[in-house]
Amino acid sequence: MDKQLDLSVYAVRTDLALEAREMASRERSEEIPGVRFHSEEENGITVSKMVIETMEGAERIGKMPGRYVTLEVPGLRNQDSELQDRVATRFAREFHAFLKDIGIQEGDSALIVGLGNWNVTPDAVGPMVVENVLVTRHLFELMPEQVEEGYRSVSAVSPGVLGITGIETSEIVYGIIEKTRPDFVIAIDALASRALERVNTTVQISDAGISPGSGVGNKRKPLTKETLGIPVIAVGVPTVVDAATIVHDAITYILAHLGRQVKEAKNPKPAGRLVPGGFTFPGKVERYTEEDMPNEAEQKAILGMIGELAEEEKRQLIHEVLAPLGHNLIVTPKEVDDYVEDIANIIASGLNAALHGAIDMENVSAYTH
Amino acid sequence: MDKQLDLSVYAVRTDLALEAREMASRERSEEIPGVRFHSEEENGITVSKMVIETMEGAERIGKMPGRYVTLEVPGLRNQDSELQDRVATRFAREFHAFLKDIGIQEGDSALIVGLGNWNVTPDAVGPMVVENVLVTRHLFELMPEQVEEGYRSVSAVSPGVLGITGIETSEIVYGIIEKTRPDFVIAIDALASRALERVNTTVQISDAGISPGSGVGNKRKPLTKETLGIPVIAVGVPTVVDAATIVHDAITYILAHLGRQVKEAKNPKPAGRLVPGGFTFPGKVERYTEEDMPNEAEQKAILGMIGELAEEEKRQLIHEVLAPLGHNLIVTPKEVDDYVEDIANIIASGLNAALHGAIDMENVSAYTH
Amino acid sequence: MDKQLDLSVYAVRTDLALEAREMASRERSEEIPGVRFHSEEENGITVSKMVIETMEGAERIGKMPGRYVTLEVPGLRNQDSELQDRVATRFAREFHAFLKDIGIQEGDSALIVGLGNWNVTPDAVGPMVVENVLVTRHLFELMPEQVEEGYRSVSAVSPGVLGITGIETSEIVYGIIEKTRPDFVIAIDALASRALERVNTTVQISDAGISPGSGVGNKRKPLTKETLGIPVIAVGVPTVVDAATIVHDAITYILAHLGRQVKEAKNPKPAGRLVPGGFTFPGKVERYTEEDMPNEAEQKAILGMIGELAEEEKRQLIHEVLAPLGHNLIVTPKEVDDYVEDIANIIASGLNAALHGAIDMENVSAYTH
Amino acid sequence: MDKQLDLSVYAVRTDLALEAREMASRERSEEIPGVRFHSEEENGITVSKMVIETMEGAERIGKMPGRYVTLEVPGLRNQDSELQDRVATRFAREFHAFLKDIGIQEGDSALIVGLGNWNVTPDAVGPMVVENVLVTRHLFELMPEQVEEGYRSVSAVSPGVLGITGIETSEIVYGIIEKTRPDFVIAIDALASRALERVNTTVQISDAGISPGSGVGNKRKPLTKETLGIPVIAVGVPTVVDAATIVHDAITYILAHLGRQVKEAKNPKPAGRLVPGGFTFPGKVERYTEEDMPNEAEQKAILGMIGELAEEEKRQLIHEVLAPLGHNLIVTPKEVDDYVEDIANIIASGLNAALHGAIDMENVSAYTH
Repeated sequence: MDKQLDLSVYAVRTDLALEAREMASRERSEEIPGVRFHSEEENGITVSKMVIETMEGAERIGKMPGRYVTLEVPGLRNQDSELQDRVATRFAREFHAFLKDIGIQEGDSALIVGLGNWNVTPDAVGPMVVENVLVTRHLFELMPEQVEEGYRSVSAVSPGVLGITGIETSEIVYGIIEKTRPDFVIAIDALASRALERVNTTVQISDAGISPGSGVGNKRKPLTKETLGIPVIAVGVPTVVDAATIVHDAITYILAHLGRQVKEAKNPKPAGRLVPGGFTFPGKVERYTEEDMPNEAEQKAILGMIGELAEEEKRQLIHEVLAPLGHNLIVTPKEVDDYVEDIANIIASGLNAALHGAIDMENVSAYTH
Repeated sequence: MDKQLDLSVYAVRTDLALEAREMASRERSEEIPGVRFHSEEENGITVSKMVIETMEGAERIGKMPGRYVTLEVPGLRNQDSELQDRVATRFAREFHAFLKDIGIQEGDSALIVGLGNWNVTPDAVGPMVVENVLVTRHLFELMPEQVEEGYRSVSAVSPGVLGITGIETSEIVYGIIEKTRPDFVIAIDALASRALERVNTTVQISDAGISPGSGVGNKRKPLTKETLGIPVIAVGVPTVVDAATIVHDAITYILAHLGRQVKEAKNPKPAGRLVPGGFTFPGKVERYTEEDMPNEAEQKAILGMIGELAEEEKRQLIHEVLAPLGHNLIVTPKEVDDYVEDIANIIASGLNAALHGAIDMENVSAYTH
Repeated sequence: MDKQLDLSVYAVRTDLALEAREMASRERSEEIPGVRFHSEEENGITVSKMVIETMEGAERIGKMPGRYVTLEVPGLRNQDSELQDRVATRFAREFHAFLKDIGIQEGDSALIVGLGNWNVTPDAVGPMVVENVLVTRHLFELMPEQVEEGYRSVSAVSPGVLGITGIETSEIVYGIIEKTRPDFVIAIDALASRALERVNTTVQISDAGISPGSGVGNKRKPLTKETLGIPVIAVGVPTVVDAATIVHDAITYILAHLGRQVKEAKNPKPAGRLVPGGFTFPGKVERYTEEDMPNEAEQKAILGMIGELAEEEKRQLIHEVLAPLGHNLIVTPKEVDDYVEDIANIIASGLNAALHGAIDMENVSAYTH
Repeated sequence: MDKQLDLSVYAVRTDLALEAREMASRERSEEIPGVRFHSEEENGITVSKMVIETMEGAERIGKMPGRYVTLEVPGLRNQDSELQDRVATRFAREFHAFLKDIGIQEGDSALIVGLGNWNVTPDAVGPMVVENVLVTRHLFELMPEQVEEGYRSVSAVSPGVLGITGIETSEIVYGIIEKTRPDFVIAIDALASRALERVNTTVQISDAGISPGSGVGNKRKPLTKETLGIPVIAVGVPTVVDAATIVHDAITYILAHLGRQVKEAKNPKPAGRLVPGGFTFPGKVERYTEEDMPNEAEQKAILGMIGELAEEEKRQLIHEVLAPLGHNLIVTPKEVDDYVEDIANIIASGLNAALHGAIDMENVSAYTH
């Protein structure tokens, strides 16, 4: 393998800042300069807050500067409606706090944009949220005196995707914003994750803007505070992962697994930072930590030539092998229909409660169906 | 009944210029000044062409000046796929000629707007057409050199309705037009008819503009050449009728039916103009003509006091009776799901063939599904 | 019109025993022998209980002997979720009492059959209920020791319709019953009503059996206690009405309306039995009573020749007039999608609470979505 | 790793006999006794025919004795409608020949059973086929004299799954067969494949019977000629693959890829049998052959300890690593909605043409939508 190659195309794609940070900090356990990070787990819901404060930090992580709040709830896989209600409530609280943090006022009007293709289930989370949010702008426009206290003006659109409309998503959104003049935008989108267990169990809130669709060439226009002139809050849900990433991470886990077996003979209680992507399923799953990883000699013993490759080289190799076989597909869990519907309902319920003071945050699901 | 009342709210609502003309010319058989009209039937498809040339004509009929082409195909009720193909082909030809007549050039770019609520089947014909038209604008934008001869730039959106988005449909459409600068707009919408047999069997093409939705107060903004600065071609399909109209027309038919029975003793072969709404089902149905209608004395004999009422008074009475009973609903045929899907496919197929020279007008249905 | 004709084909079709009784008792206000009837309204929900005890009563009404419980809730048109919850709760209570009355025990196993065509929205109420009921039979079969107290064995199928499967619905149901041996059957079906305001606002529970579909010839086999050997409880919702019935009833209402106007000069407060089909919208609508109806001479004055016709003759005339015009369609309200979904959810919630003691009857909607 | 363990739970799951045979014959290139196999590719469609003739062969492969015909069409990923038509035509021809081979007569009546859960897209291929096949049995029952020449009696049902109905699928099917007495059964089902590139691009026809659903304990009853007394033809489409299999096969490909690189220094043109799962994408993809596989010493050099593991041990290791991380999900390609719809249409079209002589096998898609 030619190390001179530009390996960027082989980079694992992730839309989650949380994962990007894990990948960036893998080799070192020290803090990343310009990046603040805090994470805590409570009752099956892990909430992580990250602020990328400097361009240096942004470059290290490969994500734009801004705030990122991530909710991880592995238990959502079990389709437990009591947990779903708790997640909606927690999401509402975090979203409400996020609005405050970035200076959105109680009376500011919102435009909710459901990005993605409603005909492709794993891409339909945005349009599904839009179908279920409480829309009030027309009431404020037509009979403002009749709107009760505790509601703000909310409008919502699903602009479709380029292949359906023939129009860049951004152009539609720009046009609607110019005509309707909302005070801020909430953009919901499906994301790619690098870890299968995060798919449909994770929600990311960010004010760093969003680039909808897979625009070609220079046509792709982002939705950001800079381009729109108003705050943009992106809410993203990973719903897919690519097969090469599944393979790459599995090999990492095999190394950690065998590395730990070697070490456990001597040292029975491993602890420390997570291996990238090695999310902790509270009370349910193994966790591998950096300490589990075998050293270079051990890696060679375990995986031979492959064990000697750098991360980038491993990824390149996997791509080289899978792509020509037609194996490098983007995949989603078999139960995608239910999972996407569930998480869209959680987000819609949470947004309704966070946006309208009149909606009880403890009973968020009553306003959606 | 107080004849001083403003009876306009009791007027039979129709979005079809064809029906409006029938109603306006009922009492007289002479031509309406400022309105040209021609109709011909071929093989189960009746094509009527009307031009409202003057404001006088517009006022008489109650429709804006402009061109109106109407296809009536009662046989569509039978869901015969051979007939559906013929209708799509005929629609393509009429639409293509219409474009030419109003000065649209082969290379002019089109924006297709699917008006209506996709969650209400009888209102979903516009969004269904949009799902099935061939969209090409992104190809012209991203790789113009690769687009084959015989295609024009077409984009398509379904802007939703006020209750779903919180935004006036017109505002969304205006915004998109400003950003994407199409040369003309095609707006597809579901209409109300006054005749149950026209529901889902009729298509109207017009350049007189369209006022989407049930806007309240002064907010309602039309989509017209005047407001948008580019030609607007409306394609409408009646999918609903209100119960009071069903009753009113049935009473008219009862009069005509019994009037004819009286006359047929003397004169066995009635002929002449149709009774309003009395569409001719080719080879299948009765037709009532103005000659069948009983005279005033006969009307009184047949229908007593009711027979003495003027048209407007009859309508008012029916409204007065049905409304408080909760009987004055807007209704649609039971088979609405199939009918709306069928006619949306016909329109999408026809538009594809009419808009793109490369699509064979004899095989229009191959490009939709 | 030839009075010798068999007029049965012109009879107004209704699947509601409540309406059949109204029609049968129209001319006389006395009780119908062999038929017990009681009705009461509470808070927007009218519950009527009828028992047809004798074959004489059955013949008079044209419905099979048995129990009929009907809930009428005109306010359901307003899609008020608080009312929907109350209706589900009331339906649960009435259904639970009905089970007791006909001798079903707490532990008896149920098969729920969703009759109708899921591709035709007004016919899909049965399949929609089946999608939302709590199914437990497999748990009892596979791990009986793990099923909590308070549940009974419930299975559920939607057998489709003849045009989709090629098989008589009854044959499929018979086959499944023989294999699974439930203790009783609950069959959900869409009905035809004769009154537009009852469409999607009424539920009928009956133990008189049901004949699914529009079977041809002698092939049609009913689902009854006699044919199946186990109790059959039919739950029906009127979702359609035919246009001729709309017209016929409107003419009756016109007579009552004008008759009342004549009488009110003398007698300001009408009272008494309802005119057939003249449902009372609590606090919202007019009611016409038999006393409003004009006498024969008045009818002739109001409606001339038409006023002189007997009921059957009027119906025949309307059919004769509308059918050849293609006007005699079966129709459903425009908002059919929402209405059918709402009432299916109410029935599913109510069945869940009525069938399983463990489900709180005050919070019935928590188990469906 | 404890070699004493029962490794069967770690076995790669495949429902495709083609893949089972590849796996069984991996270590040896000789023929499998009792198994006849022939495969040929034409114009992008590979048709393989296998007959498992003896119990010895069945045990070696792990599939029941019987005939298996497999169509592999990797190009279906491209959603090319011309190719889809060709595949439908080829499937019709193969299915027609299959019917003949197993002794089905032209006039024999068929019951088509769409297995699987219509609410889970990757599991909905059976129900989708049933929605699109031409059903005729009711015509034969009700008006046999009017059915044209060239049609046979076909009925079709989707029995649902245990979690929806509470009833074993087999019980429903047994019940319907007893009531309707078809001459043979065609059961359509979604399968699991072990190779991502076969997902939604492969169809298997077999007369070896089928065990619907994931029955628990001994309750699971197969649909076979033995249990039903009539021939059962299973038509299966792989729509999912499990993540562990993706990883396992990727490791095999990495070995083959690097093994080939070593060998190509000496021997530029590899040829021979495919590596299991290493499907040839005609004109598009790499193929790895058994000759590419490195020898034991090379495997150890390439993959270290992992390279020394036997196949079963490798699989066990991957399971051990992925399962506790929540990574061992069943996945499907992101575009599952379109892919499943496409292949369901192909099968429905093909069945219509194969079952009814009157349907032109060259224009198979005209009868579905």
